[in-house]
Amino acid sequence: MAGIRGPVDASVVPRFAGIATFARLPRLDEVGRADVAIAGVPFDSGVSYRPGARFGPSHVREASRLLRPYNPAQDVFPFGSQQVADAGDIAANPFDIAEAVGQIEAGAVALAEHADRLLTIGGDHTIALPLLRAVSRKHGPVAVLHFDAHLDTWDTYFGAPTTHGTPFRRASEEGLIDLTASMHVGIRGPLYAKSDLEDDARLGFSIVTSEYLEEHGVAAAIDRMRARIGDAPVYISIDIDVLDPAHAPGTGTPEAGGMTSRELLRMLRALDDRSIVGADIVEVAPAYDHAQLTAIAASHVAYELLSAMAPRSTQDREPQH
Amino acid sequence: MAGIRGPVDASVVPRFAGIATFARLPRLDEVGRADVAIAGVPFDSGVSYRPGARFGPSHVREASRLLRPYNPAQDVFPFGSQQVADAGDIAANPFDIAEAVGQIEAGAVALAEHADRLLTIGGDHTIALPLLRAVSRKHGPVAVLHFDAHLDTWDTYFGAPTTHGTPFRRASEEGLIDLTASMHVGIRGPLYAKSDLEDDARLGFSIVTSEYLEEHGVAAAIDRMRARIGDAPVYISIDIDVLDPAHAPGTGTPEAGGMTSRELLRMLRALDDRSIVGADIVEVAPAYDHAQLTAIAASHVAYELLSAMAPRSTQDREPQH
Amino acid sequence: MAGIRGPVDASVVPRFAGIATFARLPRLDEVGRADVAIAGVPFDSGVSYRPGARFGPSHVREASRLLRPYNPAQDVFPFGSQQVADAGDIAANPFDIAEAVGQIEAGAVALAEHADRLLTIGGDHTIALPLLRAVSRKHGPVAVLHFDAHLDTWDTYFGAPTTHGTPFRRASEEGLIDLTASMHVGIRGPLYAKSDLEDDARLGFSIVTSEYLEEHGVAAAIDRMRARIGDAPVYISIDIDVLDPAHAPGTGTPEAGGMTSRELLRMLRALDDRSIVGADIVEVAPAYDHAQLTAIAASHVAYELLSAMAPRSTQDREPQH
Amino acid sequence: MAGIRGPVDASVVPRFAGIATFARLPRLDEVGRADVAIAGVPFDSGVSYRPGARFGPSHVREASRLLRPYNPAQDVFPFGSQQVADAGDIAANPFDIAEAVGQIEAGAVALAEHADRLLTIGGDHTIALPLLRAVSRKHGPVAVLHFDAHLDTWDTYFGAPTTHGTPFRRASEEGLIDLTASMHVGIRGPLYAKSDLEDDARLGFSIVTSEYLEEHGVAAAIDRMRARIGDAPVYISIDIDVLDPAHAPGTGTPEAGGMTSRELLRMLRALDDRSIVGADIVEVAPAYDHAQLTAIAASHVAYELLSAMAPRSTQDREPQH
Amino acid sequence: MAGIRGPVDASVVPRFAGIATFARLPRLDEVGRADVAIAGVPFDSGVSYRPGARFGPSHVREASRLLRPYNPAQDVFPFGSQQVADAGDIAANPFDIAEAVGQIEAGAVALAEHADRLLTIGGDHTIALPLLRAVSRKHGPVAVLHFDAHLDTWDTYFGAPTTHGTPFRRASEEGLIDLTASMHVGIRGPLYAKSDLEDDARLGFSIVTSEYLEEHGVAAAIDRMRARIGDAPVYISIDIDVLDPAHAPGTGTPEAGGMTSRELLRMLRALDDRSIVGADIVEVAPAYDHAQLTAIAASHVAYELLSAMAPRSTQDREPQH
Amino acid sequence: MAGIRGPVDASVVPRFAGIATFARLPRLDEVGRADVAIAGVPFDSGVSYRPGARFGPSHVREASRLLRPYNPAQDVFPFGSQQVADAGDIAANPFDIAEAVGQIEAGAVALAEHADRLLTIGGDHTIALPLLRAVSRKHGPVAVLHFDAHLDTWDTYFGAPTTHGTPFRRASEEGLIDLTASMHVGIRGPLYAKSDLEDDARLGFSIVTSEYLEEHGVAAAIDRMRARIGDAPVYISIDIDVLDPAHAPGTGTPEAGGMTSRELLRMLRALDDRSIVGADIVEVAPAYDHAQLTAIAASHVAYELLSAMAPRSTQDREPQH
Repeated sequence: MAGIRGPVDASVVPRFAGIATFARLPRLDEVGRADVAIAGVPFDSGVSYRPGARFGPSHVREASRLLRPYNPAQDVFPFGSQQVADAGDIAANPFDIAEAVGQIEAGAVALAEHADRLLTIGGDHTIALPLLRAVSRKHGPVAVLHFDAHLDTWDTYFGAPTTHGTPFRRASEEGLIDLTASMHVGIRGPLYAKSDLEDDARLGFSIVTSEYLEEHGVAAAIDRMRARIGDAPVYISIDIDVLDPAHAPGTGTPEAGGMTSRELLRMLRALDDRSIVGADIVEVAPAYDHAQLTAIAASHVAYELLSAMAPRSTQDREPQH
Repeated sequence: MAGIRGPVDASVVPRFAGIATFARLPRLDEVGRADVAIAGVPFDSGVSYRPGARFGPSHVREASRLLRPYNPAQDVFPFGSQQVADAGDIAANPFDIAEAVGQIEAGAVALAEHADRLLTIGGDHTIALPLLRAVSRKHGPVAVLHFDAHLDTWDTYFGAPTTHGTPFRRASEEGLIDLTASMHVGIRGPLYAKSDLEDDARLGFSIVTSEYLEEHGVAAAIDRMRARIGDAPVYISIDIDVLDPAHAPGTGTPEAGGMTSRELLRMLRALDDRSIVGADIVEVAPAYDHAQLTAIAASHVAYELLSAMAPRSTQDREPQH
Repeated sequence: MAGIRGPVDASVVPRFAGIATFARLPRLDEVGRADVAIAGVPFDSGVSYRPGARFGPSHVREASRLLRPYNPAQDVFPFGSQQVADAGDIAANPFDIAEAVGQIEAGAVALAEHADRLLTIGGDHTIALPLLRAVSRKHGPVAVLHFDAHLDTWDTYFGAPTTHGTPFRRASEEGLIDLTASMHVGIRGPLYAKSDLEDDARLGFSIVTSEYLEEHGVAAAIDRMRARIGDAPVYISIDIDVLDPAHAPGTGTPEAGGMTSRELLRMLRALDDRSIVGADIVEVAPAYDHAQLTAIAASHVAYELLSAMAPRSTQDREPQH
Repeated sequence: MAGIRGPVDASVVPRFAGIATFARLPRLDEVGRADVAIAGVPFDSGVSYRPGARFGPSHVREASRLLRPYNPAQDVFPFGSQQVADAGDIAANPFDIAEAVGQIEAGAVALAEHADRLLTIGGDHTIALPLLRAVSRKHGPVAVLHFDAHLDTWDTYFGAPTTHGTPFRRASEEGLIDLTASMHVGIRGPLYAKSDLEDDARLGFSIVTSEYLEEHGVAAAIDRMRARIGDAPVYISIDIDVLDPAHAPGTGTPEAGGMTSRELLRMLRALDDRSIVGADIVEVAPAYDHAQLTAIAASHVAYELLSAMAPRSTQDREPQH
Repeated sequence: MAGIRGPVDASVVPRFAGIATFARLPRLDEVGRADVAIAGVPFDSGVSYRPGARFGPSHVREASRLLRPYNPAQDVFPFGSQQVADAGDIAANPFDIAEAVGQIEAGAVALAEHADRLLTIGGDHTIALPLLRAVSRKHGPVAVLHFDAHLDTWDTYFGAPTTHGTPFRRASEEGLIDLTASMHVGIRGPLYAKSDLEDDARLGFSIVTSEYLEEHGVAAAIDRMRARIGDAPVYISIDIDVLDPAHAPGTGTPEAGGMTSRELLRMLRALDDRSIVGADIVEVAPAYDHAQLTAIAASHVAYELLSAMAPRSTQDREPQH
Repeated sequence: MAGIRGPVDASVVPRFAGIATFARLPRLDEVGRADVAIAGVPFDSGVSYRPGARFGPSHVREASRLLRPYNPAQDVFPFGSQQVADAGDIAANPFDIAEAVGQIEAGAVALAEHADRLLTIGGDHTIALPLLRAVSRKHGPVAVLHFDAHLDTWDTYFGAPTTHGTPFRRASEEGLIDLTASMHVGIRGPLYAKSDLEDDARLGFSIVTSEYLEEHGVAAAIDRMRARIGDAPVYISIDIDVLDPAHAPGTGTPEAGGMTSRELLRMLRALDDRSIVGADIVEVAPAYDHAQLTAIAASHVAYELLSAMAPRSTQDREPQH
């Protein structure tokens, strides 16, 4: 682990200073390769309601300035026991969904040359499809652990097969996901039809609804989540609207009755012994945010994911600057 | 149920398009009569602190565009198993409380010609008095289930007998409420005097405080609520400030320490086997809202109420467009 | 003019009450046909920077509640000497620009059956192309008077020929515009290349820049505008970003150094003797607006346009309610 | 002028510190009597659209912390050559306009015992009527110089004779104003009817419209204003919506096309040789303000008024702390 | 208790009226001496990230207007069974931390002449150090009960020993705190190093983390808190960022995953039988607040603290006006 | 000019994508050396009122994404005829003004090794002093052209000699400025004392007040500005509060009655034939901004300055990507 470069030293450069990379980490081009690369995917042309998640990556970068090196909740140095680096953004055509999806997959595949794992910041949920395509190239079908208010297994909108409401149906149809180990967490709010749930089950998902969480508590939800995923390699996809609008106002299709950020972080920590092969955090729409509320939540979500990915060495250490 | 018209089809007209009716439902004049009419009452001249709830109806209409047809949490199609329609607003004189209260009662009575039940969107809590008068004409004294941070059984402010702090005292005095089956839920924060609570009990209310909810949990509160209401016909009055300011910043007299929207929605679902004769959702003050946070919560509250009102047929169905 | 229906009477129904149509005017379906139909076009998938103008029509409708019947600045009753009605929104596919552009043209053509002129509220500037196509079907090539910070005569973005930066190049190429009588007003800010201006001139436009306005004043600009347009039938296209961001923060590609709303309204009044065949007001992006600032400006812009379109009878009159 | 107490010394107590009085001046009870008393009138039950001006006085007090002692534009020490003091607020019943109007007049009359002149911060424009009644008790009919987007000489709304749209009609009818020397400045936007202007002239007002200002410039407007007022004792009533919404978003009935704050301040400075007998600044509605923009403008308006009221001694001086 | 002056009577003066003191209480100079003095300390030059808490005192004063006399949750009249008064602000040099810290200590000591206990409103957390110095002059080392997301026992930032991240290390080093009875509650988020926790324990603190609260619940946390504090005289220091950013967006170093205001208020009520010798509420940064959300929470926190401080007489009473 | 690297190509990477450098220009470390380096100075511990300008550099970077390569108003390619690069931020101790001022000077001197000219983004106005020190090392005393609402030639605040209100007094005392060619533009609002103006003149400044601009117009102001500066090497210091709060709400000490952005940009263009040796843009405080209004204005100000600095070659060209 010698040579791992961590964030800029906050005792020399104040946290509010400097060009914003995620958590003030080095850029990928500075370190050459990384255990985990963080990449923005500023694409939101797949949204059905409020757009604006194209500004998500820069907003999350700005809000991640406060992240510090040691995570006591997981007892790990996520930037010290593995090299994490900011790979910048994957550019995608905002006027052509199909082309954009191809660009995102190609971008993810190219980054895989330089990083073992990819944590992406959206952008809207459309991006999960090309990201899963890239992941499955390497890992085959993976368990998808999906935190969201919405199923995102709808079929088409206005004839469009690839939007932010459809990635997991497409992924299931394409054989990208492990039908025995995938799960939605936090689902709530109205659906189009009763058959939405039947389709969803057929496509390979088990569901922990928000109502389940409210009635049975987070510990029970964690048990179900861990049982469902088992030992499968897991891809984690987090739509920030899984949080209640009070915790994440800056998003495109908010639904009342969601999770608190404290509950979500707790659930993510329970994944620290699983094999996480990639992750995304999507649907942060800055124009609807207030005081970076949503982006701070997204930053902490990323931080817990990075911590869960980090190797537990006998000698955890602080990152070098 | 043939002929029931539901919301505009979101696969043809995007949710953000079209003149805003509640949930993009038909207007009452389009369908002639309805099982449930939704009416705005844009009156806020009874407020003692922050005004602005006069803009509540249009704000909630705009925020209700995302509501979809099927409610999995209650397994019902609230717009499909009953005709719901938007009756527009009841106009009321903003400069004369007494005249306005008369206009609101008259408006509610007139709507009762065309709709079995009325769900109103305020406006401030003053409107509950004329609405209860209208309800009691048909049903006699009703159980009032009142979600609020405040008792609203005060006597007068500045000599005014009819304000947003007094509707339930007046209603009790006028014999409009069932003294054995009425309840406040979510009460919290400072009072004027110890006698406020004594008066309140005498006026017919039992109380589930916010502190009770915090200590005993929602399930216990639901038990108390159901036991108190029993089989009485119940009018539900929801001051959005029953929610914590984090969940409902857009209101006039916010108090810290309130309910989450998840808790409130759960409590409302527990009313699905009761006889609901009418309801109001009040005190949404848009000028203090952010990203429609409060109005989205109000929309979901309305949706759960409509779902609880909906008949459970053996053949639930999706609404026609 | 007997039978003209104007806005809801504000002495009976407060301005903040009622389902929002533009200026509280009747719907087109209520009056059957109109001299001027107002239609929303909630489409913003052609934007290159901040999206959100899809919510423009509903935002402008809400902000137009304050418009009153008589315009002293033009001494005309815009809702009384002609029938103006709200035609609702033209639905367009948010995921496919080409299909959407077809839908918008078809929608505009269909409305032309019921209304002599169309005033549209965007949506992004992409919509000007199908609207000009519809106008030219009836009028042949028209003068385009275009208020904007940007030329919108660029060629392609990311290979896309039809975006909010290209409508007037496409229109010129298609022969929809009168090359001798078209003009941009308010142009400012950086361009991509010097050749942008040469292309623009070749495509048929003369320019009154914001710098010209600052140095020579509005009166001189009006003279140039009137001289350029002459007697040609004129289509007026107003990108709200022609206003300074101080006056119109709620827009997608703001540029400092723009017009005040007072200047813009003055220029529009100077068109009261011209033959206006249609108009659009675009790029109002509510998520970036504050206190309806931008939408109020857009409402007044619409009001002056409607006033300029209104016939000057010997007996102007107030509208009926 | 010995003994005049000015604002708290900003070199000892930072401007952001301390309980907020206007400009950090002493309270009236601290100094006993004053040349000019500043009083809030937090009453907004007379508004026809957006309420909220009841929070205007506290908002303006907070925003006035930056005012410093010397006004170079008028070369005067407004807090040093006269005693200015904060008299707190005049309490008024929010539920009864008639009672409130009586309370405001009584409050103003009571303050006149302790201060030669009163500068009030509203509240909505309804308050101008009782304030003019109080002024006329002492001075008889006065010239009213009224800055506003609206005439405020309408007759009734919903049968109410006393609202924020009617004070100057009532005042004229009651003989409180000098019909030969009164004027509106900044009028713009739509009216209800052509007769509004005829009524207004008959009630004693000459008008400088916003269009006049745009076309002829501020210098010409000043000439007209000074000629109209002449030597009459003048009461100045400033509705903050005379400013463009860009300069004053925090108000209740905004109209595009207004004055800049620079223009308004210039016009007020041109009154430094007139006999100002009182003034009000109304319609600041904080819930719609941003970054105190509107309240800062109101503070500077107050400062120029106080400066215009200040005696020009041969020995101007700084106030004592 | 005769002679105790409570808040201005809200049935005579509306809550939104009047110069803002905390809870509309009398000023300390009006009552001479008080059981509890409330003082603002508008100092924020010790912050490491977002500044702005210098405006905290005035913001909290404005938001405290809604507090009423009787607290049913503790069954006490906090303004009636003890004299509470607003002492204004302690002025501190914003450009010199060391001088400011001296001024704050001196100010607190001076106030101790007139009040038995001090409740301060910050300002940033730097102020806890001089306040503890003042408290310890009278009480010797005290238990510190510290609610915060952060430990605030770091050593130096940029060589500065006294900042908002260091007060409790300095206090511990100076012997101001009871090492056997002090505790942090609500700690969460990343740290700089593992040794932060070791240092913290050595400096005398036990910790109830936010994760503990999430997993074990508030009742368990209360038990630990009460056991730790025991009977020691306790100083309570509340950084508003102990609340989740959803409940307190207006603060300088927000961390996701915090407490709800309902939980915090419950914990404070559990202190009603302890010996509270002083308290502070810090880090309210108004520029990041929305609709006074954070300041309302802070007001209620203050109210529960004042209630916990209030003597329980056999005859509780309402305050006089 | 071969080898000049311009901004990222917006036809390949959308403007909203990528880690934010100013105008998406290359970093200085990528190009080695530059004609103009842009550096942030995130220091705001010298402010006397609203802090927050420490976040100015990142805010302006985000808002500068829309800048395009060609400036038609000056007919120049500011990124093509000279190498412009983003040098990141100069870190400064937020807790010690004196140390920070030293760090800033050292940082500026170090950058001078790699860049001919420096354009800095503040930060508060304190930074102008060390920046002038660095400039004068190379150029000797320079003309200072200072756009601001405030003189910034005060002496001390709270005993502190170096704050945002004092840089030009200190600079004058130190002999850093050309006493015959320096000027303030846009001064307005109240002063502390009449002697402020006398001191200011003695320190070497001529003044174009905002009142002068209002009465005499921009052309006259430009004449005075050009005459005063003459041929002297000039350092331009722009406090964004020179703009009216309508145009720049996001700042620390706003004063009503300021310039429009259109006027300011015009004045800056009139400097295109002068010898500009450096510049700063300060006092952008993002927490008070709305929709990037202030930062967009600052970006355009920077763009005009860079354009004025750019060499006018016979062959202007577009930058390479």
